[in-house]
Amino acid sequence: MAVIKAHGSLLSTATQRVLLCLYEKEVEFQFVPVNMGAGEHKSENYLSLNPFGQVPAFEEGNLKLFESRAITEYIAHEYTDKGTQLLLPGSNKSMAVLSLWKEVEAHQFDPASSKLAWELFIKPILGMATDSAVVEEYEPKLAKVLDVYETRLSQSKYLACDYFTLADLHHLPNIQCLLGTPAKRLFDSRPHILGRYLTLLAVNE
Amino acid sequence: MAVIKAHGSLLSTATQRVLLCLYEKEVEFQFVPVNMGAGEHKSENYLSLNPFGQVPAFEEGNLKLFESRAITEYIAHEYTDKGTQLLLPGSNKSMAVLSLWKEVEAHQFDPASSKLAWELFIKPILGMATDSAVVEEYEPKLAKVLDVYETRLSQSKYLACDYFTLADLHHLPNIQCLLGTPAKRLFDSRPHILGRYLTLLAVNE
Ligand SMILES: N[C@@H](CCC(=O)N[C@@H](CS)C(=O)NCC(=O)O)C(=O)O
Ligand SMILES: N[C@@H](CCC(=O)N[C@@H](CS)C(=O)NCC(=O)O)C(=O)O
Repeated sequence: MAVIKAHGSLLSTATQRVLLCLYEKEVEFQFVPVNMGAGEHKSENYLSLNPFGQVPAFEEGNLKLFESRAITEYIAHEYTDKGTQLLLPGSNKSMAVLSLWKEVEAHQFDPASSKLAWELFIKPILGMATDSAVVEEYEPKLAKVLDVYETRLSQSKYLACDYFTLADLHHLPNIQCLLGTPAKRLFDSRPHILGRYLTLLAVNE
Repeated sequence: MAVIKAHGSLLSTATQRVLLCLYEKEVEFQFVPVNMGAGEHKSENYLSLNPFGQVPAFEEGNLKLFESRAITEYIAHEYTDKGTQLLLPGSNKSMAVLSLWKEVEAHQFDPASSKLAWELFIKPILGMATDSAVVEEYEPKLAKVLDVYETRLSQSKYLACDYFTLADLHHLPNIQCLLGTPAKRLFDSRPHILGRYLTLLAVNE
């Protein structure tokens, strides 16, 4: 079997999404660090892996992928018999519900949480100043999304169904970042979300 | 079989994405217009269909969905035997390539093209003024994405493979909007994209 190479940066939540999936699936891989500080993600070599010049990128033999969620989707389907079951095999209707919550992560949660993770977590690490106007714009947006999750998680054990799926996993890197910032209070006030994911974050540490 | 209800607004490209998919799959449905001008998408009734108060929303018997791409995914899987085949049944590796281009649409193309469609197409229709600073910020971002597509479509007939899939379909509503605006020149200068999608847009008219 071809060696899996996961290219990326440990500071990148998109990279973390892929690494977390590989760990959950107990799939062996080689991590190839991309030195973003030195602009390696914009080098010709790296652009042949991802023409958008972003991390992560993924290789398994001839298969070259990028976009973190396309990579996790592939890993979950290719390695169904290993590690945690992250899919919802079954009817088209139950798969549609998984698909729905993955789309909510991508289009509702990610835009707000990525902006906040960048301002409140990554920029301080890089010695850059947080732009408080951006924080003030995006905190209420994230709060609205978390309200929907709080309701959903008081009715369903996890987002898509009664067990942990890719829909949940895709959220964890940004949640983990934000729990280390003042935006933690958005989670503290929503016990169902925190109760569900804090355990998982602890388990995955 | 339960009646399909597609709730939305014809001015919304997210709604159009779902309608286009239903037409391609030749699936009968009932269109339920949502009067966004009157704020109907924020009414209690509508929020029970989509807690984010956005169009579209979808119903088929007990199944209630929102997020346009979760809806198209469900339709494509549920009605494989009808209309155009929009999936790539086959190996996990070929599905991964479809998944990759769907993710590129969602995370690279959509953010830039939706902003531009709003500023250049929808706002003028609603009698609002286009914000030229936003246009200047997002046109170069869209151009970069289109460069990647131009290269891809000079090597592959469609984005994921040699036939039309959901990855292509998801782009069409925003492309159709933008072709009616000054941003058309971003497509005019990229013959492979225009050649591929102009025919489809004409066919789908
Ligand atoms: N939608 C992409 C996002 C990837 C992304 O934004 N990566 C960031 C780091 S978290 C990056 O490479 N930024 C550098 C750049 O955009 O130039 C994915 O999920 O893989
Ligand atoms: N990611 C969503 C986006 C839906 C969306 O942005 N809908 C717009 C119209 S195109 C809307 O309802 N806007 C009103 C609002 O956000 O309040 C999808 O694909 O369905």
